[in-house]
Amino acid sequence: MSGRHSKNDLERTADDDVLHDLEDRWEEPSASALRWHKDLDVRELDCDSTPGWDGDREEAERLIAAHATELDDLQERLFADGRTGGGRAVLLMLQGLDTAGKGGIVRHVIGLVDPQGVQHHAFGVPTEEEAKHDYLWRIRRALPKPGYIGVFDRSHNEQVLVVRVEGLEPEETWQKHYDEINAFEAEVAAAGTTIVKIALIVSKDEQKARLAERLERPDKYWKYNPGDLETRAKFADYLDAYQDMLERTSTDVAPWHVVPADKKWFARLAVTELVLSALRALDLGWPPAEFDVEEQKKLLEEN
Amino acid sequence: MSGRHSKNDLERTADDDVLHDLEDRWEEPSASALRWHKDLDVRELDCDSTPGWDGDREEAERLIAAHATELDDLQERLFADGRTGGGRAVLLMLQGLDTAGKGGIVRHVIGLVDPQGVQHHAFGVPTEEEAKHDYLWRIRRALPKPGYIGVFDRSHNEQVLVVRVEGLEPEETWQKHYDEINAFEAEVAAAGTTIVKIALIVSKDEQKARLAERLERPDKYWKYNPGDLETRAKFADYLDAYQDMLERTSTDVAPWHVVPADKKWFARLAVTELVLSALRALDLGWPPAEFDVEEQKKLLEEN
Repeated sequence: MSGRHSKNDLERTADDDVLHDLEDRWEEPSASALRWHKDLDVRELDCDSTPGWDGDREEAERLIAAHATELDDLQERLFADGRTGGGRAVLLMLQGLDTAGKGGIVRHVIGLVDPQGVQHHAFGVPTEEEAKHDYLWRIRRALPKPGYIGVFDRSHNEQVLVVRVEGLEPEETWQKHYDEINAFEAEVAAAGTTIVKIALIVSKDEQKARLAERLERPDKYWKYNPGDLETRAKFADYLDAYQDMLERTSTDVAPWHVVPADKKWFARLAVTELVLSALRALDLGWPPAEFDVEEQKKLLEEN
Repeated sequence: MSGRHSKNDLERTADDDVLHDLEDRWEEPSASALRWHKDLDVRELDCDSTPGWDGDREEAERLIAAHATELDDLQERLFADGRTGGGRAVLLMLQGLDTAGKGGIVRHVIGLVDPQGVQHHAFGVPTEEEAKHDYLWRIRRALPKPGYIGVFDRSHNEQVLVVRVEGLEPEETWQKHYDEINAFEAEVAAAGTTIVKIALIVSKDEQKARLAERLERPDKYWKYNPGDLETRAKFADYLDAYQDMLERTSTDVAPWHVVPADKKWFARLAVTELVLSALRALDLGWPPAEFDVEEQKKLLEEN
């Protein structure tokens, strides 16, 4: 796929066969297998399942490795497009409860591409300056520029999650956010940005195991916050809020994907494939030369 | 080195022996072998040399791979430190003429660590807004926050390079910048940021070959700009400016390192080792728990 890797034809054929076999472990394309639909209730999701994927962990890891080259190549095409006047970008929005694995996704999936082409933002409690503005203010400022893959670790979606569950705003206020979010995302999509929204859903039992691990390992203490237990006590309320968010903000231009997250390897595979799928859909070539190639060759030769 | 990787003692010993042999290919630590000193004139540098390194390309690539785990581990410790109130950061400043390989360094070296812990900025021609301010304004805004590795692809150093060579300011103005840069960097270092300045020096012949490659390959056209030839025509002037920059802004708190860049593999090895060396010098442990671990375990068990 990439012009940067030279292989002889025999190798390419063998590699392609292996790749094809691995890709066939998807019984259905990831983008449709994982897309939220009205019959999908996250409160009843089997978080240990692997929707659409018929392979095991080892095959998943091999497919990620096999797709890494294409991902890297397509990211560079996107970057090149942005550098030469193109207006397209990709925005990956990750949403998930504590320990759902957003950080690991960024590390292992986004870590596959050139850091020069990534704009990553983690949204926490608004700073004093941010709190003075409308909640979309800091989001707009962080939108990926043309050519970039933007990654949002949490986002404006918290406005119908933590804000609702913790009662940070009255209901009549947060109820308006669903429509505002849809209008905002439609505007972003219309401006040329492909939106990939992913809700990582971890089970309450698996969350307990992951929090317990943080308490067992001194190199993980820094990731633990006693407040995590207060949030955990409202696990069911959060899932209610997730379900409403999915129902009310999954749109044609910005659909939600639901990724069961108890198997970290599956969550990583799923996000890799969804991002790859979004990049493939852009169908990007390499920008043509905006100069006379032969003339430049001659000038370079003389210089 | 990393607490995250469990190996039995026998494996650890074997791995450590291999690592030790590879590290021994440095005849002198990279930080001293590559540090600019007053007898080093970049106009006479052998850009194909590998100062301090006695190994070959394959050994260099194996050492980078072997050090990747430690780099990743130390970056996470730095991040954890920043999250728990620490004030330290690392700032890698890359400077180099066209085709010197800054982009490849970011892709291959910075790509080894978690993108969540990296703040990357490429500084081009100032935007309209940037041009309204002092040249350090945009630099200050891009300084890495505590816990982060900042990467500057070009920086305020251009104020004594392109600004001087292209005559964008009168000499009496740019002559003042050397002292201003030193004062600024001393301030940044005093605030807790370790500065790693690297000048990648490519030879004029190698630059020609790399520009020619961009003109041969349609997937590289976007990286080529006819203006590159105008800059190339002033190659000697730029090297004069580099030499003065090295002489006048290499300080104890922000020394310059000169990396011959005709061998891409060596430049990548050199930068990996210099960043690793800066992180090691921070001597970071894991932050202690700021809560009662046993109490939290009990609360989690009940929840």
